[in-house]
Amino acid sequence: MIGTFWLVLGGCGTAVFAAVQVATADTGDVPVGVGYLGVSLAFGLTVLTGVYALGHLSGGHFNPAVTIGAAIAGRLPWSKAPVYIVSQVLGGLVAGALILVVASGKAGFEATGHMAANGYGSNSPDGYGLLSALIIEVVLTAIFIWVILGATDRRAPAGFAPLAIGLTLTLIHLISIPITNTSVNPARSTAVAFFNGDGAVGQLWLFWVAPILGALIAGALYGPLFGERVKIASAPGDRV
Amino acid sequence: MIGTFWLVLGGCGTAVFAAVQVATADTGDVPVGVGYLGVSLAFGLTVLTGVYALGHLSGGHFNPAVTIGAAIAGRLPWSKAPVYIVSQVLGGLVAGALILVVASGKAGFEATGHMAANGYGSNSPDGYGLLSALIIEVVLTAIFIWVILGATDRRAPAGFAPLAIGLTLTLIHLISIPITNTSVNPARSTAVAFFNGDGAVGQLWLFWVAPILGALIAGALYGPLFGERVKIASAPGDRV
Amino acid sequence: MIGTFWLVLGGCGTAVFAAVQVATADTGDVPVGVGYLGVSLAFGLTVLTGVYALGHLSGGHFNPAVTIGAAIAGRLPWSKAPVYIVSQVLGGLVAGALILVVASGKAGFEATGHMAANGYGSNSPDGYGLLSALIIEVVLTAIFIWVILGATDRRAPAGFAPLAIGLTLTLIHLISIPITNTSVNPARSTAVAFFNGDGAVGQLWLFWVAPILGALIAGALYGPLFGERVKIASAPGDRV
Amino acid sequence: MIGTFWLVLGGCGTAVFAAVQVATADTGDVPVGVGYLGVSLAFGLTVLTGVYALGHLSGGHFNPAVTIGAAIAGRLPWSKAPVYIVSQVLGGLVAGALILVVASGKAGFEATGHMAANGYGSNSPDGYGLLSALIIEVVLTAIFIWVILGATDRRAPAGFAPLAIGLTLTLIHLISIPITNTSVNPARSTAVAFFNGDGAVGQLWLFWVAPILGALIAGALYGPLFGERVKIASAPGDRV
Repeated sequence: MIGTFWLVLGGCGTAVFAAVQVATADTGDVPVGVGYLGVSLAFGLTVLTGVYALGHLSGGHFNPAVTIGAAIAGRLPWSKAPVYIVSQVLGGLVAGALILVVASGKAGFEATGHMAANGYGSNSPDGYGLLSALIIEVVLTAIFIWVILGATDRRAPAGFAPLAIGLTLTLIHLISIPITNTSVNPARSTAVAFFNGDGAVGQLWLFWVAPILGALIAGALYGPLFGERVKIASAPGDRV
Repeated sequence: MIGTFWLVLGGCGTAVFAAVQVATADTGDVPVGVGYLGVSLAFGLTVLTGVYALGHLSGGHFNPAVTIGAAIAGRLPWSKAPVYIVSQVLGGLVAGALILVVASGKAGFEATGHMAANGYGSNSPDGYGLLSALIIEVVLTAIFIWVILGATDRRAPAGFAPLAIGLTLTLIHLISIPITNTSVNPARSTAVAFFNGDGAVGQLWLFWVAPILGALIAGALYGPLFGERVKIASAPGDRV
Repeated sequence: MIGTFWLVLGGCGTAVFAAVQVATADTGDVPVGVGYLGVSLAFGLTVLTGVYALGHLSGGHFNPAVTIGAAIAGRLPWSKAPVYIVSQVLGGLVAGALILVVASGKAGFEATGHMAANGYGSNSPDGYGLLSALIIEVVLTAIFIWVILGATDRRAPAGFAPLAIGLTLTLIHLISIPITNTSVNPARSTAVAFFNGDGAVGQLWLFWVAPILGALIAGALYGPLFGERVKIASAPGDRV
Repeated sequence: MIGTFWLVLGGCGTAVFAAVQVATADTGDVPVGVGYLGVSLAFGLTVLTGVYALGHLSGGHFNPAVTIGAAIAGRLPWSKAPVYIVSQVLGGLVAGALILVVASGKAGFEATGHMAANGYGSNSPDGYGLLSALIIEVVLTAIFIWVILGATDRRAPAGFAPLAIGLTLTLIHLISIPITNTSVNPARSTAVAFFNGDGAVGQLWLFWVAPILGALIAGALYGPLFGERVKIASAPGDRV
C-alpha cells in the first residue's frame, strides 16, 4: 500500500507538478520543466527506491499486474493476490487525493484533464488510437513482468533486482508516455482517473484489461521460455 | 559538515549556476541549461557520492531532519544530535557563501532572489501556497526518512543504501521543486536564505518545522509499521 | 532474439514516439519530448535491464557486432555465431514491425524518414558525411566491445557488468546520434531500415561494415592490449 | 592513455556533436540536443564505464590531477606519476584530433571556439571571471579527489567505487559547465585547447594550476581529516 502510494505520488506527482515549467531569462522564457524524461525517471525511481528501502519487508508489490504475473508464474500464492490488489488501489487513491490537495494550493489550478490520467484517442497525449494503446500496454507489461521474474531469479546477480526493475519502468515510460501516458499498472490508472475526469474513467477499463492480459501472457510463458522450474515462494523476503 | 557543504554546493550551486542557460545556434537561441531535472539529479548525487565516499567514515548525516529521524528511531543517541545539527548548518552556510562569491564573478549577477532559497506563496517557483508547501514537505521528508531507515536496515541488500537514498532525494526534487524549491532539509534552507534575501528568511521557519515534523512522524512510525526492533547503533560505520 | 527485440522496441521506439513532443502551457508551446538524451538513455536501459533480467539465461547477445567481437576474442565458439546473428536480426525486425503498427495508430503518421533509421550524408541527423560516419561507428563499436570484454572479465567487480555495458551504450548514443543516429549494431540498423525507406536501405551496408570492423579490431586487440589469456567460454551463464 | 582518450572523446565529443541540436516539428523547431545535462552525464559515464571495464587492468587514472592527488596521499609512488601524466595528455590529444576529424565531416563546421575548450572571462560559457574560475576548479577538484580516495578506501562498499567516482564527475559538470566549461582535469583541457583556438591556449595555464592545486590540498588533507593511515599501494589492481 505504501509502495503504490509512493509510485503514484512520485510518478503522477512529478507529471502534475513539474513536467511543464518555464523560467524567465534575459533572452525570454526558457523551459525548465522535467518533461517526459523527468516523469519517466520519477516513475522508475519510485520502484527502485521503494524496493531497496522496503522490498525486504513487504515484498515490493506496487502493481496489480505484477501481483497477477507473479501468481501465474508460481511465485506468489493466488490466495494472497486479492488483499495485495485492494491495498494497491487504496494506496494509489490516497496518493491521487494528496496530489489533488497540494495542486489545489496553486492559484488557477484546474484538475480536469491535468491529473496525469491514462488515455487513448483524444485522451492520448499525442493522439494514438485504441488499438495502439492496447498493443503497447500489453507488450510493455509483458516485458516488465519478464524483467521482474528474471531479475529476481536465483541465477541473477544478487542485489541488483530493484535497479533493473525500476529502470525498466523508466524505459517503459520513455517509450510510451506519448501513446497512453503509460499505465502498465491498473492501480496507478485508477488512482488518478476519478480526480482527472475528462473521460478518463470511461477509458479506465483498458488500463485494467491490457496490463492484466500482458501479465498473464508473460507469467504463463516465463517458465516454458526461460526454463525455470515453477515453485511457490511466498516468504516476505521474496522480492518479486 | 563536509557532507552538507557538498549537498548545498552541488544542489544549490547547480540551481544558481546552471539551471537556466541558453546557447546560440543557427536557428536562434536554444535552451541548454540543466533545468529542474538537472537540479534534482545534482541534489541526489551529492548524497549518493558523499555517502559512498565518506559515509563509512563519518556516518553520512547531511541533514538535521535525518539526524532527528534517526534519533527518534533509536539509530542514533540523542546526545549526538546537537553537534551534528550545528555542523550541518555551518557546513551549509560555508557552501552558500562560496556560491555567492563565485556567482559574483559574473557581470550583472544579482543575489536577491537568485540563491535557490526555499519558499511558498509568492516565493514558490510556481506559486503554491503555505498549506501545499507544508503538506508536501512533511510527506516527502517522512518518506525520505523511511527510505533511509529501510535501506540501512540489516535485511536490505548491502552496499546499495547510498544509491537508494541519493536517488530518493532526486525523486523528491523531481516532484516538488515547483512547489517549494524543495527543502526536506533545514540546513540546506538556512544555508542560502540569508544570502537570497527577498523574504526567504521570513519563510525559513516552515523549512525547519515541516521537515522536522515529517522526520518525527517517520521515525516514530518506522518501528511499529515495519516491525524492526528499536536498537541503539551509534558506531561510526553505521551509515544512516 | 528477445534481447534485440527489446533493444529496438525500447531504443527506436523511444526515438519514434517520444523524442520530439510539445505541450501547451500558458506561455505557449513548451518542449517536453525526451530528446537525444532520452533516446540515449533508452538504448542503454534496454541492455542494462535485459542483461540483468535475462543475461544469466541466454548470454545477453543483442548485437551481431558483440557476437563477432566475442568470437574473435575467444569468448564464444564461432560455430554459435550464425544462429545468434540470425536471431538478432529477426528479433529486431519484429520490433521494427511492432513500432510501425503502433505508430500507424496516430492520425497523420508518415513512416518514410521517421523510423529512426541510421544514415550519413543527407540521412545524417546533423548532416555528417560518409567518412565521419565510418570513423565514429568503427571507433565507438571497438570501445563498446572492449568495455564488454573488460566488464565481464573475471577480474572485474561481480554483478556490475550489465550496468557498465548498458551505460556505455547510452554514452555512445550521447556522442553520436547527430552523426549517424548511432548504430554500432547491424541488427538495430536492419530492423528499421526497410520500414523507414528514404534511402536507408541503400546506406545499410555501412552499418554492417563499420560495426563489424570495429568488433574485429577490438576483439583481436583485447588480448594483446589488456593481457588476458584467450579462452573458450561458451557456458550459457557467460554474460558477454 | 585509453582512459583519457575515452574521457575526451565521450565528454568533449558529446559537447561538440550533440549539446545543441534542433528538430523540426509541426509546431516549429524543437530543441532535442542533450544540453549541459547530457554533457555532464557523458563525462561521468566515461569514467564509470572505463573504470568498470578497464580499471582492474590499468588502475583507472584518466586525469593528471587524480594521479597527483593519489601520489601525495601515498596511494601511488611518485616515480610512476610522470609516465601516467604524459600518457594521459597524449591519449587526450588523440581524442581531440579524432573529434576534429569527425566534426570536419559536417558541412560548414568551424573549429574555432567550438571544440569544448575550458575558459574564463570572455571564454567562460556564461561570462564568469578568472577568480570564480580559479575558486570553483580548486574546490571541485579537491572534492573529486576526496571522493576517489574515500570510495576506494578499504572501508567503503566493494564494487561501487566506479559508480561513485563517475557520478561525482557528472555532478561536478552539472555545477560548473557555465563557469569554466568544467576542467578539473588538465589533460582534458589540453586535449582540445590547441584545436579550439580562440584564446583557449592562453588560458590553459589555469586548468593546470587550479586542478593540481586542488589535488595537492585534497591529497594532503585526506589522511589527517579522514583518519586513514598513509600507505603505498601501487598494485595494478588498485583502482584509484
